[in-house]
Amino acid sequence: MGLAVRKFAKDCTVVGYGHRASTLDEAIEIGAIDEAKLSAAQAVEGADLVVLCTPVGTFESILHEIRPVLAPGVLVTDVGSTKRRIVANAESLLPAQASFVGSHPMAGSEKRGVSFAAANLFEGATCITTPTNRTDVGALEKIESFWRLLGMHVTRLSPEEHDRRLADISHLPHALAAALVTLQDEQSLPLAGKGFLDTTRVAGGNGGLWRDIFLENRDNLRDSVHRFQGHLERLMAHLEADDADAVKAWLDAAAARRRGVGVGPMKPD
Amino acid sequence: MGLAVRKFAKDCTVVGYGHRASTLDEAIEIGAIDEAKLSAAQAVEGADLVVLCTPVGTFESILHEIRPVLAPGVLVTDVGSTKRRIVANAESLLPAQASFVGSHPMAGSEKRGVSFAAANLFEGATCITTPTNRTDVGALEKIESFWRLLGMHVTRLSPEEHDRRLADISHLPHALAAALVTLQDEQSLPLAGKGFLDTTRVAGGNGGLWRDIFLENRDNLRDSVHRFQGHLERLMAHLEADDADAVKAWLDAAAARRRGVGVGPMKPD
Repeated sequence: MGLAVRKFAKDCTVVGYGHRASTLDEAIEIGAIDEAKLSAAQAVEGADLVVLCTPVGTFESILHEIRPVLAPGVLVTDVGSTKRRIVANAESLLPAQASFVGSHPMAGSEKRGVSFAAANLFEGATCITTPTNRTDVGALEKIESFWRLLGMHVTRLSPEEHDRRLADISHLPHALAAALVTLQDEQSLPLAGKGFLDTTRVAGGNGGLWRDIFLENRDNLRDSVHRFQGHLERLMAHLEADDADAVKAWLDAAAARRRGVGVGPMKPD
Repeated sequence: MGLAVRKFAKDCTVVGYGHRASTLDEAIEIGAIDEAKLSAAQAVEGADLVVLCTPVGTFESILHEIRPVLAPGVLVTDVGSTKRRIVANAESLLPAQASFVGSHPMAGSEKRGVSFAAANLFEGATCITTPTNRTDVGALEKIESFWRLLGMHVTRLSPEEHDRRLADISHLPHALAAALVTLQDEQSLPLAGKGFLDTTRVAGGNGGLWRDIFLENRDNLRDSVHRFQGHLERLMAHLEADDADAVKAWLDAAAARRRGVGVGPMKPD
């Protein structure tokens, strides 16, 4: 994000906060940040815009830390992959002169760290903003302009709808990919073709990050898993009944839906 | 395959069989075949090597059709994604002067048709050969040389082990991807990110082809699905118990395994 902001908003000064000096040094070296701070409170002092980019599990303590030093009129957003608790916490913890808008820029990769940074990460991808009835409309529009500046398409959803839909389209796929890798025995893995590698790529992602997402969105994920099992069991029932036409119809319907995804203007692929 | 053979085995004459004249015309036009036949029996007449590349469901009728006209000493192989029944059928249906070796070149794509043909499709990918105690060793070695000529790494498995391992590493991933697409509601699909698109790419594949694979390998697929559900349920149990450490350990183990796949010399990716 630092690289993107410095590319698309050249007048901004980007201050990076992190807990490892070596990471911050690297970030300065590649030009992702102008200044580095090892304290979140110091990093946000005098900022016009604060973007929380740490794992969601650390947001609450960071909000507590930064709240006393935020400048009047500051805009605060985040890039968390779950939204209900984050938005509720931010709205209750931040002082009245700060405006919070939840964001979920859906760009990233299973790769992690400064060395994988790219200024064009966000281009063409979708960002979901999650306003509530407490969200300031002016702040919402400014935050959405910020994401558009980085090249993103913006969609608005309530925090509740966000978490429900993301369980289906993002969190469940991760759980399935990870279970699919776990299942394999060592002699089968060398037989993995491109299909398996594609299907399981996300499973290489950071365990701590996904633990937080799964725990935050457990109720929705439980529901997604339950519905998923229903669909898989329908396929297996067609197979057990030796109903070739029903198996083909089920597969054809999935194939047609899949081929229709990713052709619109909102897909990063 | 025609393109690959004409590129890597320039002395061969490639005769293509298909049931649509327009497809065969296109194949001649792009240089994938030298000659075209609308009858399988005519296509194999005088051939040194016959490669069955139709959907597995049609193999039995094609074997019946070609068996009277095969030249003495002919090598016959196939590219079917399941092996037990195909190999047993070929061994019992083919005349004694023909040598059959089952093959599964694990290269391909969810895209289909002459326009997606590429001579380098097989390069660096794995081909599994499935000899039995009835397989002629000389024929096996010749068939393996053929796949190596196209750039493939060759691994031998029994037809039984092939079908069992492929259920885990290929057929189950397809079933999961298709069920995952089926689950989504229309408003969630525009939120699909790169992860979802990767995870579900294979689901865009041909329904008829996968129906045949699933029906042929139903017993193994049933077992794979059963074990898969066990792994997914273990994750959900950790989540329900609010056991953050167990969730992370489960995810970390999957991530470590996934990162270790595809780094060896046998992976096409």
